[in-house]
Amino acid sequence: MDADTLAKAFVEHYYSTFDTNRAGLGNLYQEGSMLTFEGIKTQGSQNIVAKLTSLPFQQCQHTINTIDCQPSGPAGGMLVVVSGHLQLAGEQHALKFGQLFHLMPTPQGSFYVFNDIFRLNYG
Amino acid sequence: MDADTLAKAFVEHYYSTFDTNRAGLGNLYQEGSMLTFEGIKTQGSQNIVAKLTSLPFQQCQHTINTIDCQPSGPAGGMLVVVSGHLQLAGEQHALKFGQLFHLMPTPQGSFYVFNDIFRLNYG
Repeated sequence: MDADTLAKAFVEHYYSTFDTNRAGLGNLYQEGSMLTFEGIKTQGSQNIVAKLTSLPFQQCQHTINTIDCQPSGPAGGMLVVVSGHLQLAGEQHALKFGQLFHLMPTPQGSFYVFNDIFRLNYG
Repeated sequence: MDADTLAKAFVEHYYSTFDTNRAGLGNLYQEGSMLTFEGIKTQGSQNIVAKLTSLPFQQCQHTINTIDCQPSGPAGGMLVVVSGHLQLAGEQHALKFGQLFHLMPTPQGSFYVFNDIFRLNYG
């Protein structure tokens, strides 16, 4: 699987999990993982899931506009930059967002999220 | 200098150079550096500068809205995510953009841009 295909598969998996079973995202992070969500920093799989599941909205749906990826260096990591829209239940307008994932390989041949930076893009 | 201060200093330097002397950006990239600009991939300092200086606008001014940074791993790299506006000369409306820089340390104690991913954020 080439890098672009892998990035697309990861992104689809991430947001479909976010939109249907947010607590299930914990499997994608590890203890060293970092999340910066709207400028607030959190570290570690458990804290990150606590942050994501405590966001002040329940139902939501992500729509992806663009996905860009590049290898991050000799350790086999991959940078994935996403732009898209986030529709919250009961809200008229979708919110624009940008998100960066830095995926690192696991010994099992899969990837986990080492870095995660999320921002809403206001006008 | 802490990471946030360093990221802010880099971002200010990068965009002031972009807006006043775009060809001068070459010093910030090396041969292995990668740029993805609106989905178009370029590699190497010389090719990246050729791409940036050939963009179909001359005068421009970047305004920064947000800067987020995280360490990228044991190699001492730093991920810097920027959101902001790009005002082109003669255009009425500024364009929203998002940009990721992955900075890697040089033996001289400075940093260079290893990864660069730029996207305009359309509605």
